[in-house]
Amino acid sequence: MAGSLRESERSFTATSPLDGEKLSGRFSIASLDDVESAMQAAGEASEVLASSSGEARATFLETIAAGIMDLGDSLIDRAMRETALPAARLVGERARTCNQLRMFAAAAREGSWVDARIERGQPDRQPLPRPDLRRMKRPLGPVVVFGSSNFPLAFSVAGGDAASALCTGNPVVVKAHRAHPGTSELVAEAVQRAVVACGLPPGTFSMLHGEGSVIGTALVRHAACRAVGFTGSRAAGRVLCDVAAARPDPIPVFAEMSSLNPVFILPGALDARGDEIARQFVASMTLGVGQFCTKPGLVCAVQGAQLERFKAKVAEAVSAMLPASMLSADILAAYEHGSDAMARGPGTAVVSRAAVQPDGAKTEAAALVTATDATTFLAQPELAEEVFGPFSLIVAAESLAQLATLSRHLDGQLTATVHGSAEDLAAAGGLMDILAGKAGRLIINGFPTGVEVGDAMQHGGPWPATSDSRFTSVGTAALERFIRPVCYQDVPQHLLPPLGLSRRVEGVVGRH
Amino acid sequence: MAGSLRESERSFTATSPLDGEKLSGRFSIASLDDVESAMQAAGEASEVLASSSGEARATFLETIAAGIMDLGDSLIDRAMRETALPAARLVGERARTCNQLRMFAAAAREGSWVDARIERGQPDRQPLPRPDLRRMKRPLGPVVVFGSSNFPLAFSVAGGDAASALCTGNPVVVKAHRAHPGTSELVAEAVQRAVVACGLPPGTFSMLHGEGSVIGTALVRHAACRAVGFTGSRAAGRVLCDVAAARPDPIPVFAEMSSLNPVFILPGALDARGDEIARQFVASMTLGVGQFCTKPGLVCAVQGAQLERFKAKVAEAVSAMLPASMLSADILAAYEHGSDAMARGPGTAVVSRAAVQPDGAKTEAAALVTATDATTFLAQPELAEEVFGPFSLIVAAESLAQLATLSRHLDGQLTATVHGSAEDLAAAGGLMDILAGKAGRLIINGFPTGVEVGDAMQHGGPWPATSDSRFTSVGTAALERFIRPVCYQDVPQHLLPPLGLSRRVEGVVGRH
Repeated sequence: MAGSLRESERSFTATSPLDGEKLSGRFSIASLDDVESAMQAAGEASEVLASSSGEARATFLETIAAGIMDLGDSLIDRAMRETALPAARLVGERARTCNQLRMFAAAAREGSWVDARIERGQPDRQPLPRPDLRRMKRPLGPVVVFGSSNFPLAFSVAGGDAASALCTGNPVVVKAHRAHPGTSELVAEAVQRAVVACGLPPGTFSMLHGEGSVIGTALVRHAACRAVGFTGSRAAGRVLCDVAAARPDPIPVFAEMSSLNPVFILPGALDARGDEIARQFVASMTLGVGQFCTKPGLVCAVQGAQLERFKAKVAEAVSAMLPASMLSADILAAYEHGSDAMARGPGTAVVSRAAVQPDGAKTEAAALVTATDATTFLAQPELAEEVFGPFSLIVAAESLAQLATLSRHLDGQLTATVHGSAEDLAAAGGLMDILAGKAGRLIINGFPTGVEVGDAMQHGGPWPATSDSRFTSVGTAALERFIRPVCYQDVPQHLLPPLGLSRRVEGVVGRH
Repeated sequence: MAGSLRESERSFTATSPLDGEKLSGRFSIASLDDVESAMQAAGEASEVLASSSGEARATFLETIAAGIMDLGDSLIDRAMRETALPAARLVGERARTCNQLRMFAAAAREGSWVDARIERGQPDRQPLPRPDLRRMKRPLGPVVVFGSSNFPLAFSVAGGDAASALCTGNPVVVKAHRAHPGTSELVAEAVQRAVVACGLPPGTFSMLHGEGSVIGTALVRHAACRAVGFTGSRAAGRVLCDVAAARPDPIPVFAEMSSLNPVFILPGALDARGDEIARQFVASMTLGVGQFCTKPGLVCAVQGAQLERFKAKVAEAVSAMLPASMLSADILAAYEHGSDAMARGPGTAVVSRAAVQPDGAKTEAAALVTATDATTFLAQPELAEEVFGPFSLIVAAESLAQLATLSRHLDGQLTATVHGSAEDLAAAGGLMDILAGKAGRLIINGFPTGVEVGDAMQHGGPWPATSDSRFTSVGTAALERFIRPVCYQDVPQHLLPPLGLSRRVEGVVGRH
């Protein structure tokens, strides 16, 4: 048929990075008609979801969590084959995913995310009466979520973006990540079963497969789309931001993109704990084959014998690291390209590379650490670009003052870490102020990998770490991305939407 | 001197809309070097302000308020001459401006805007210890504020945008509105005196004069600029949003642009209170010569004898309105252009025009109300464009169902109003849900002009009402525009920034 696509262009299969095996299942690539249908259904579901009860949303999220657990080993097995992540990690990530769903269920049920602010009418106020004002948050409308490569469960189909959007009454349309379509389908089916079981409109949740540059941008351009959640590369995130900003009605994009997660080691700490920090640093930068967005990709310290000893300890640990399979061949190729460029210099030296040769057939990567001096680093912007994978760069500064200069020079970051003795820290207030101005999370004497999921987490920092530093994609505050306030003026009580349990009444916060 | 500007291109004078008189004073048009200096100074002031105490910021804001009051009649007189707004209105606006400054001073002092969320360390947690996590908001950095034409005090140099940015520790650079440079200078001098009196860095506050398309965009493009506050036209707001989105690091723009503020009158209310609503509606649409962003520019009701009677009552009130001076000749020209187009149709009819002829030499405008039917309105998008000034359009629907269709058809709005009897409202849940999805404030049996300044106000709605419906430019919540969270992980207590009085500790909000 003229103009139609061949079967291979309308569907695709998954390949395992572990051994290149073609995995079972064919996945349909969405057409622009599919985009239209999914977004239109989401638009229609919006009003129903906006007026659904917190209890109904909570039950829905809990039903999704139960459905994911019911998938049992089939989910873990498929995710292992598609992502090369080990079973224990995936079991842990599944637990996190379900815990997130239950955490947002609790938030939906408790309901204080509406941030109710009440100022009662004062009909006798002079010179003019005050109307009754009640400000509450409500859902934005359909949210488009892009599944990530590195968290096939916790930041994909029913991950934090989707859970926080659904919790607050927004329909979700997921663009599945191409690297793990089977995993995505299994979870999407669990979500769709929950939609049916809970009697919600079908447009509450949809998932499409396809290229981000075609299907992804069409979703973001669609008139019904009200917000976007994305975790991925800086280039792809920028494209989505630009598409959203060019709409007749620009919409918010929450893109988590790129971060070096710098670690500053101050002299007292280097002296007292250099060997231990070296060991922990290598463990952090190679955790999950360096495929965490919080991987420490940059270490800054003052030059000298202690730093040389630190580098030697790092070299020892890195050379002993076994190569490991990355998430996909594309990601390995990008890692090899990026880390090779870093190794070649100019002005950089290889500190160490994993001794055992990686096996390309297994999509394996070798850990690499390079080093340079601060003057070179400051002069070469490309040295400050993230290399996704088990790579990090050690920068030697001439002095504490140059460490501060380095910190000022950095782009926005998800995290910034300072290792220091009590004396170091007492003297480093300026450095910490600069870093708090650059990063979403400031860590003292720890490492950035390992992101707690709770009230107090901030996972989001100034550009290019994320597209909007005012919001987080991890923790309960993530739901703030998908809501907006409405002030109800003189609306009769019985017509008002439900209040949460905690309210600000005449300026005082509490349970009234 | 080759390449230099003539005096008339480097400075300008103000003209009174009341009589065309050239007013005293010449105002320098900023150069791009001035932009660079102001933004660089703001960048340098950022770190100092970020670590200043709430008490210091509160004192600063209160000193500004006192300084504005100290200007006495000179400020009111100049503002009257520059804006044609009556003295009583300006005295009221000055009171609002100073109250806003004091309100944000109180917020700075109280400090709970940092929204502290504390999850204490659990070193013994299994399988992994939990770090100590404290999430607090901190300032974004330099904010560029564009003075508005219609609130020469309350939304200009020391208005709500500037006060909420300063309250949270952000330096401010104001681009003064060209229509009231003398008023702006007087207030800017009061702010600068407060900067000196409070010992703050000079970059805490600057003001520049110049064209928005040159100086305004240069300010928004500047690397040090972290956020933008704007109140003005849709076209100018869009330009600023586009400039901000095209930066290497996009920044948030809070633009308040364009709103019809639709008023839906349901049959029971039209029947019972039609005459009173007509009178109040004309008072609201002509308040301040229709130059409020919340002016009701659209009335929707079901056709019939009651609506015809309503239109006759509106016609009576409008024809009796005296012409009044608008803010500037440019604004009058735009009003005449827009209202003439609305009067010409096609498909629209003039309901009434103020009977007394306006005097062009006094920059006077005549109130105008036109009417059309819903089918015409739905077919002609240009009928849904805001006309800034004393104009409104009455749209007759065939049925309640067509009223709902009209409501769905609307763009985003600052406000939406429903007039209804108890029976009307009980049956109109669907309409109110649609309007809550379209507007930032939903008003029952009232009028949108008159915006309370408090905790519960929301002044911001979906595009094109504002560029970001998640935030408000009026009320205490306005300060949320200029802050972002940072999570402090295992930071020793004595190095933490101060907490506010109200905190969320282990999930529970209160004063701990």
